[in-house]
Amino acid sequence: MGRVTERRRVVRIRGGAVGARPDTLVAEEPLEIRLNGKPLAITMRTPGDDFALAVGFLASEGVVAHASDVQAVTYCEGATEDGSNTYNVVNVQLARGVPVPDITLERNVYTTSSCGLCGKASLDAVRTATRFPGLAADPVRVGADLLGELPDRLRAAQKVFDRTGGLHAAGLFSAEGELLDVREDVGRHNAVDKIVGRALQAGRLPLAGAVLLVSGRASFELAQKAVMAGIPVLAAVSAPSSLAVDLALESGLTLVGFLRGPDMNIYAGEHRIVLPAGRQ
Amino acid sequence: MGRVTERRRVVRIRGGAVGARPDTLVAEEPLEIRLNGKPLAITMRTPGDDFALAVGFLASEGVVAHASDVQAVTYCEGATEDGSNTYNVVNVQLARGVPVPDITLERNVYTTSSCGLCGKASLDAVRTATRFPGLAADPVRVGADLLGELPDRLRAAQKVFDRTGGLHAAGLFSAEGELLDVREDVGRHNAVDKIVGRALQAGRLPLAGAVLLVSGRASFELAQKAVMAGIPVLAAVSAPSSLAVDLALESGLTLVGFLRGPDMNIYAGEHRIVLPAGRQ
Repeated sequence: MGRVTERRRVVRIRGGAVGARPDTLVAEEPLEIRLNGKPLAITMRTPGDDFALAVGFLASEGVVAHASDVQAVTYCEGATEDGSNTYNVVNVQLARGVPVPDITLERNVYTTSSCGLCGKASLDAVRTATRFPGLAADPVRVGADLLGELPDRLRAAQKVFDRTGGLHAAGLFSAEGELLDVREDVGRHNAVDKIVGRALQAGRLPLAGAVLLVSGRASFELAQKAVMAGIPVLAAVSAPSSLAVDLALESGLTLVGFLRGPDMNIYAGEHRIVLPAGRQ
Repeated sequence: MGRVTERRRVVRIRGGAVGARPDTLVAEEPLEIRLNGKPLAITMRTPGDDFALAVGFLASEGVVAHASDVQAVTYCEGATEDGSNTYNVVNVQLARGVPVPDITLERNVYTTSSCGLCGKASLDAVRTATRFPGLAADPVRVGADLLGELPDRLRAAQKVFDRTGGLHAAGLFSAEGELLDVREDVGRHNAVDKIVGRALQAGRLPLAGAVLLVSGRASFELAQKAVMAGIPVLAAVSAPSSLAVDLALESGLTLVGFLRGPDMNIYAGEHRIVLPAGRQ
């Protein structure tokens, strides 16, 4: 099986002093995701939670929405010639009756980039494809003060970050601030796919009332994944992109950026954030 | 044409005070890259330098290596139904005699993920595919002290970062520390592709003797792009992944991580770094 970290020799320069020693690095390996036996996508990921990653990726693409949509998830033994990396190929077998998407080249381009041909087309595609259209009506509200505490809780829960400095983290919280799940990966999208996939496997989609916190920036793709999983609040420690904001506004997603303690920017869905008392 | 930044309304909370005002966000839009008229890949990118991005992507994939390999790069007018986003589709027409890669589904999966099926296979693929096999023999040497000054020079040269906080930057330097080019993008890979594409268009590949500095982490894909462009030194402000280090070791790329002023970690190719005097 793959490892989350690996050791490599490094020459360190600190304060002008030079020394060589082993260093802990985040592991990065490709994962090929197959759907009913056919190659669908390859992603560079940190090994671990591979089944959840594959299923979460398919949920983000609208292929599956419930645990019952998945018949089986398996590693493909013998998929590589030398047999040493069989954990890098995962096949998802859909349950009988679940429509198999048309995996043409155009469709594949679409899925691997997680966007459409142009901004408008992508937004339309997401709005059409989501299996959980109730997102905009999700009545959850979260206190700004509580939201400001979540980055520290996420960092405290991270297992690998302090050792390697090379991982993105995604944390799933309840509206009361309870940490429901945390995943780390070299790819920020993978961390979110793992969160969504684990929730799907546990029969918890849509993630109504939940808050998704990401350690970096909020790109269009992350906003799209939140919408596809029915998550009403997406918060990022850093900046969002323009298209992420547009998607949030159109789909009823609350989008918070630059979340740093009690300070934050709310880009969409501010009605879900309980603002500081007496200053509204 | 697309814009590098866009304005959106934001609700700001600072020190418990709430206010609404326009905020500057980094623009993010999809770019479809076509090769001889056929769709090859879609990437989410910050508009600007689109032709360089397309050509640089193809250079990273080993399809082109010299300006003469490209007959023409054009926006596809009328490519979208409403005609409003024609700058989001770019076609690269290869020069006569340049082999067109087989754009099958497997090939496309390969190109859009920029990796092979497993770590070993990808390393082999890169080693085979590179058009500039002289990388390992590049005799350039760079002083550790000079290297430590480059992040500040990169930040000083960034045009957008301070306004939005949402961009990755890539800077190309000479071994003497001269800033040769700097590009920014929501996608770190795009920033590097733009650098490489502009160099190709200027007839400057391979980029022998050059230093590529990236503002974030050093993933396998970024190391691969450096190798494919013949860049002998890749430095990152943050951590590398294990596979990036493996690729650097195998291909003769010097890889520096956690570059923070005079402190740094050298993961591969340390013979190119002139270490602090008297402390070796």
